[in-house]
Amino acid sequence: MSILGIADATVASLVRPLTDPQHDRDAVAERFARATWTAIVEPGDGVAGAVVAALGAEAALAALLDDRAGRLLLHALDEHGVELDPGELDDGIARWTPRISKSDALLALRQGARFALSLVVPGDPDWPAALDDLGVHAPLALWLRGDRSALGSLGRAVAIVGARAATGYGEHVTIELASGLADRGYAIVSGAAYGIDGAAHRAALASRADTVAFLAGGLDRFYPSGHEALLGRIVEHGAAISEVPCGVAPTKWRFLQRNRCIAAAGLATVVVEAGARSGSLNTAGHAAALGRPLGAVPGPVTSSASAGCHRLLREYDAVCVTTADEIAELAPLPEAAHPTVERADQEGIRPAADPTGTRIRLLDALAPRSPRTPEKIAALSGLAVDRVRAELGLLALDGAVRERGGGWVRAAP
Amino acid sequence: MSILGIADATVASLVRPLTDPQHDRDAVAERFARATWTAIVEPGDGVAGAVVAALGAEAALAALLDDRAGRLLLHALDEHGVELDPGELDDGIARWTPRISKSDALLALRQGARFALSLVVPGDPDWPAALDDLGVHAPLALWLRGDRSALGSLGRAVAIVGARAATGYGEHVTIELASGLADRGYAIVSGAAYGIDGAAHRAALASRADTVAFLAGGLDRFYPSGHEALLGRIVEHGAAISEVPCGVAPTKWRFLQRNRCIAAAGLATVVVEAGARSGSLNTAGHAAALGRPLGAVPGPVTSSASAGCHRLLREYDAVCVTTADEIAELAPLPEAAHPTVERADQEGIRPAADPTGTRIRLLDALAPRSPRTPEKIAALSGLAVDRVRAELGLLALDGAVRERGGGWVRAAP
Repeated sequence: MSILGIADATVASLVRPLTDPQHDRDAVAERFARATWTAIVEPGDGVAGAVVAALGAEAALAALLDDRAGRLLLHALDEHGVELDPGELDDGIARWTPRISKSDALLALRQGARFALSLVVPGDPDWPAALDDLGVHAPLALWLRGDRSALGSLGRAVAIVGARAATGYGEHVTIELASGLADRGYAIVSGAAYGIDGAAHRAALASRADTVAFLAGGLDRFYPSGHEALLGRIVEHGAAISEVPCGVAPTKWRFLQRNRCIAAAGLATVVVEAGARSGSLNTAGHAAALGRPLGAVPGPVTSSASAGCHRLLREYDAVCVTTADEIAELAPLPEAAHPTVERADQEGIRPAADPTGTRIRLLDALAPRSPRTPEKIAALSGLAVDRVRAELGLLALDGAVRERGGGWVRAAP
Repeated sequence: MSILGIADATVASLVRPLTDPQHDRDAVAERFARATWTAIVEPGDGVAGAVVAALGAEAALAALLDDRAGRLLLHALDEHGVELDPGELDDGIARWTPRISKSDALLALRQGARFALSLVVPGDPDWPAALDDLGVHAPLALWLRGDRSALGSLGRAVAIVGARAATGYGEHVTIELASGLADRGYAIVSGAAYGIDGAAHRAALASRADTVAFLAGGLDRFYPSGHEALLGRIVEHGAAISEVPCGVAPTKWRFLQRNRCIAAAGLATVVVEAGARSGSLNTAGHAAALGRPLGAVPGPVTSSASAGCHRLLREYDAVCVTTADEIAELAPLPEAAHPTVERADQEGIRPAADPTGTRIRLLDALAPRSPRTPEKIAALSGLAVDRVRAELGLLALDGAVRERGGGWVRAAP
């Protein structure tokens, strides 16, 4: 509020706290700042998570706008007893500042209001507590399209994910399992992708069960476009959720980060079909890292669409699940029994180094034909310009990028 | 020798020790006694294993023929420092004595000679050391039909087993895996049953790899009869092995015990397809009990022929294997690496109580129509008459057997 102001009445409803009928000015400002942060950081940015957790979104944003941001934030963190490596903090500030734009933030909010999104922030009574298991990597806020009450179903949800290139077998089994779980009172979380994800949502809708889709891009556009009708039904009977605001494209990095939310939101994650390099293995990895039970559905060893599931069984200690009953055993409903879910070992408030993530985000921000400047790449990827320059050099050595016409392009694979 | 004498020149070759060109009288007598023991005990009789291990086959047999067998054996065991529960020993003596028959033993040997069997006993240079992991439950001797040198291949053998009611998928995968293992220098052990077993042997034969079939009955008759041609090829290029002499029928109990030999003979056991109650799960159980690596091949969850494999993955910590390479990783060849096989925790020299075994053996010895006396049942099952009477009473309470015309019949299920 004090920073950007609410210039527009259309966005007021979006930032009005649920629990505060008096529209407490501080609460509104905090929500507004949270929404702004979702436009500044890439999903899963642990340094931002640590800063916002310690100072609050508004105070952190105010400090960030100051020229002495580094010193201010470090001092404030210190006062809150949070230790953060100054280098990591500087890197964070360098990533975030190129993206601070009052007009962009307002545009995102206006678009949100136009699409009747809800803004859900930590502390809201329906904030999905399961996401807090992500620690500093938890979303700073969620954008939700559809029925906000679907959030309540996440406490009894199973994540069913899998290959986009699913086989008839995979889709058949997905429908069997998702319907069986729906009959037992479970909600279904997935990613609305083609193949297994879509079959899982469809089965849930057909069984009139709650279903929630986590999307990698902004909720103004449904992705994939071929699932526009399906997502329309999902938001009618359940909800679509994203941690990025309207206008933000789904990139590879955002898909990978979206997967961590799916894994965290489910009592367990079940992979039905997955090729040897399927993105759903990433979701499975997040589930395992969070200590969430991980199930894999076997299939014919002659089917490459099951190779990833078999790898999960072989190498990642996934539990072999073949029926809804076996999944229910893996993820007991809280009413029936306390889920034996171990919390992830959260390594304090310091995010883990993630060089691979940097690389993916940088490549996401490059085009194969039109050259982009490091500054443009920094803004698109949410990385600091210095970091972008250094990584571009390394990637060029690997032959992954090429310099052309004063900018950089992605090299053909 | 001193007990039964070698009444027949035809059997002399069978009991002549391999390592002893002088036909040492004691060695011949010991082999002869081992052969006789195989006709007296049911496979896996741990009390017999303990007695024979401590005293030697001939001395144990001599003591058994004495009226004071119990006292003599207990005294002798004590001298050898072996503790055995007197009750268990008495039970053993009561099981064995009804079966001691000089004429039966000689008949078995003569039949063995007629079918050109070899008799392999512990201490022979080609005795498969892997079977010693069975402890007191190890076979007392092996009858072998075919190429005795195939025994040498057991040190690099994988056991591939599975459902008789295999699907086209299961047979296809079996052939792929067995051929792949054969190409990598492995031998294939199995049970020559219909379905997976047969496919495994066939693939090994087609790849000119060594293959060994463990049979549950005497080697004078090939079982199943539909695999007579296949077993003919197995004994031509490899070997068929049994621990019971000629003339002994394959019963359910003997199948279960045969499975322990398959599990012990392989560096690892791989189950390709298995229904929820398949006998190959028993083989898998033996492999796990012996600490042998256990692999299970997944299949469609919609196929009941894979349900047992999925159970092994879910409940028994079997490793999911989908290629010959993954099996090779599970069971490295001794040349390439020392197999990381843990020896079974052998609980000293005392056999475990096995009431289920008694029941199965007793039911094996009953017919559905013609009544049999407890004495007849005792001889057929290798159980003591008193034990037979007691068990019949319990089984009658369960409705599993009925008394009729002075004898007992198996009740219709």
